[in-house]
Amino acid sequence: MGLVVQKYGGSSVADAEGIKRVAKRVVEAKKNGNQVVVVVSAMGDTTDELIDLAQEVSPIPSGREFDMLLTAGERISMALLAMAIKNLGHEAQSFTGSQAGVITDSVHNKARIIDVTPGRIKTSVDEGNIAIVAGFQGVSQDKKDITTLGRGGSDTTAVALAAALNADVCEIYTDVDGVFTADPRVVKKARKIDWISFEDMLELASSGSKVLLHRCVEYARRYNIPIHVRSSFSGLKGTWVSNEPQGDQPMEQAIISGVAHDTSEAKVTVVGVPDKPGEAARIFRAIADSEVNIDMVVQNVSAASTGLTDISFTLPKAEGRKAVAALEKTRAAVGFDSLRYDDQIAKISLVGAGMKTNPGVTATFFEALSNAGVNIELISTSEIRISVVTRADDVNEAVRAVHTAFGLDTDSDEAVVYGGTGR
Amino acid sequence: MGLVVQKYGGSSVADAEGIKRVAKRVVEAKKNGNQVVVVVSAMGDTTDELIDLAQEVSPIPSGREFDMLLTAGERISMALLAMAIKNLGHEAQSFTGSQAGVITDSVHNKARIIDVTPGRIKTSVDEGNIAIVAGFQGVSQDKKDITTLGRGGSDTTAVALAAALNADVCEIYTDVDGVFTADPRVVKKARKIDWISFEDMLELASSGSKVLLHRCVEYARRYNIPIHVRSSFSGLKGTWVSNEPQGDQPMEQAIISGVAHDTSEAKVTVVGVPDKPGEAARIFRAIADSEVNIDMVVQNVSAASTGLTDISFTLPKAEGRKAVAALEKTRAAVGFDSLRYDDQIAKISLVGAGMKTNPGVTATFFEALSNAGVNIELISTSEIRISVVTRADDVNEAVRAVHTAFGLDTDSDEAVVYGGTGR
Repeated sequence: MGLVVQKYGGSSVADAEGIKRVAKRVVEAKKNGNQVVVVVSAMGDTTDELIDLAQEVSPIPSGREFDMLLTAGERISMALLAMAIKNLGHEAQSFTGSQAGVITDSVHNKARIIDVTPGRIKTSVDEGNIAIVAGFQGVSQDKKDITTLGRGGSDTTAVALAAALNADVCEIYTDVDGVFTADPRVVKKARKIDWISFEDMLELASSGSKVLLHRCVEYARRYNIPIHVRSSFSGLKGTWVSNEPQGDQPMEQAIISGVAHDTSEAKVTVVGVPDKPGEAARIFRAIADSEVNIDMVVQNVSAASTGLTDISFTLPKAEGRKAVAALEKTRAAVGFDSLRYDDQIAKISLVGAGMKTNPGVTATFFEALSNAGVNIELISTSEIRISVVTRADDVNEAVRAVHTAFGLDTDSDEAVVYGGTGR
Repeated sequence: MGLVVQKYGGSSVADAEGIKRVAKRVVEAKKNGNQVVVVVSAMGDTTDELIDLAQEVSPIPSGREFDMLLTAGERISMALLAMAIKNLGHEAQSFTGSQAGVITDSVHNKARIIDVTPGRIKTSVDEGNIAIVAGFQGVSQDKKDITTLGRGGSDTTAVALAAALNADVCEIYTDVDGVFTADPRVVKKARKIDWISFEDMLELASSGSKVLLHRCVEYARRYNIPIHVRSSFSGLKGTWVSNEPQGDQPMEQAIISGVAHDTSEAKVTVVGVPDKPGEAARIFRAIADSEVNIDMVVQNVSAASTGLTDISFTLPKAEGRKAVAALEKTRAAVGFDSLRYDDQIAKISLVGAGMKTNPGVTATFFEALSNAGVNIELISTSEIRISVVTRADDVNEAVRAVHTAFGLDTDSDEAVVYGGTGR
């Protein structure tokens, strides 16, 4: 048929039973006539255990050595998976990131992939083997040191290998059935999405949806690799993420793809900024220089009477302290009044390419929140997304209200399936 | 001063505390002005845990994947050791066997070292780093697959690196104070040996002494690399193994180096073998074809009346079943009467180059055993070793009797020291 890259996360290979279950599924893909390349993460808690060990010997583990340590995790899971597959009577070979040709820059702990030269993987599958590749890791181009790709690295490895091997599909196996119209833990009636465009998926990922990370979707979009996100526990179809609908999928995209929420951010407000050219630049240069990533930025018109304005932005809670410290240093130069820091917020985002051509979307969104008694603190929009900041306490109610208002609710009978009997 | 290769076994790096203690000792060697290369095994029980995992997913783990799995163990310990050293303010870099240039053949699980090309290690120490190298592992010359060296592999890695780097000494750190004149667990008055020649050490190793494996000593002898076996828990001098005494060591070798014993072997006797040319060859060809390694071989003159003789040999207990099966198949062709298999035996060996020029040694040895009431079942000698086979039950008494008879006992006050305060 073709070449399939499959990726299994740590929860799918958490123990020997999980590895054997994954092995069966891999063999099934092979029996269906595909060449199969499997990217695998470290088993369940392995990475956390290694991090604990590192902190016992050194309070600040070094980047190079930390990567050397962590990459032991995938080495274990991939070798075990290869053994389990061979035990089912099929040939399998495991490869480290380095052996698989995953070339990165030298930024330890969060390296970026520069190139993928999968010669050994190609040879291995051409010889009839199932190739198992360690996710999350690579080798630096200049120093030939072992590197890791940081958060979501294994998904990125899978997509990058799929691109380099010109694969037909990259299947991302996880512990949920796919991408949902909202987080099923919050919205019981959330619906699994059959197909979503790269663009909408990118917006969902950057708005708090955790199934796929932005980085991996961005890579897939650039190389036009269709992703199929699905459960390693059930045999159900999952969610396709691609440029165009696949096969029997609906040809027309839904107006709204889904509702995402994010409670990992905090809000900083710089109060009383003189409303003149260059002040905002000064503020955000200070933030950037302290290497803090910010998300939403909102500035309203200034009050005519004072000539002062307020600037708010959101950022990961973990970076709040750094940002506030950097801003305090600029207080004299900028001449603002005060800083407010608030980490009891939530961001709720509505994503969908259809909103471009459906003018009522914004109004419906705000009405739904209003009817649910949720106060809006900040608003920010892109072409295919509307985001608002609310109190953290309101988040679940807000998401449910919006989900219902846009007709995304499904009958509860069809709701999320975990586990299953396989196909 | 020079270049020192140090090797630490799994018991020395069993936990975070052990790793920190080793880090201190490594840094001490560096502070003494040496370039330092450290070879490290997997932490304590890691290897056993990985083997258990492998057996959960596959009853017969494959060679290639088994090696991939096991090598995760050293990757963890070496990265942690590098971090611990950096935490003490010294620069350290860890390297896999492959990165360190340990090139092997393709025999997985018991690969042999073909070549060592330690370019990266040399560069690393020349730049002022302490280089940490994974023991026990290499990369195959033809397929570039990860291999492991089998039993005692880390010691061999250390000696091979020492040879390739032209090191001044290879220090093997272990959990005992050095090589003793007998196993201190059996002989309370066993004495630590200050210096022993390669030849005597080789005989001790092949006679059951477990401190150093034959393979590692053989490698050191071929490249003339002095080995210093010592405790990682104390600061004491250990045992030097080399061609010539070092420094303040006695210039003249002792008559007897030590008494070794081995209870891991079994004895096979082929009864009633026709005493004519070619019969013994047929028997041992059958054994060799079944890939069983044999140790002692004894055949006595045949009884004139029958023209039949008995041939006995010893072999590892684990290989007994295979050998007996192979022999049964040759029974018709060889025409022997019966087979006897006995795994309740012990081998006691006296080793010392001095016995070449001291004719009374054999007599003293047998008298000591006789006085202790120990019956001798088989005798075999080399130029610098006498070995006998006795009942397994007699082994401790036999070893003690021989140790005393050759004046090897020390005052109990000076006996083995475990642990210590460091220097």
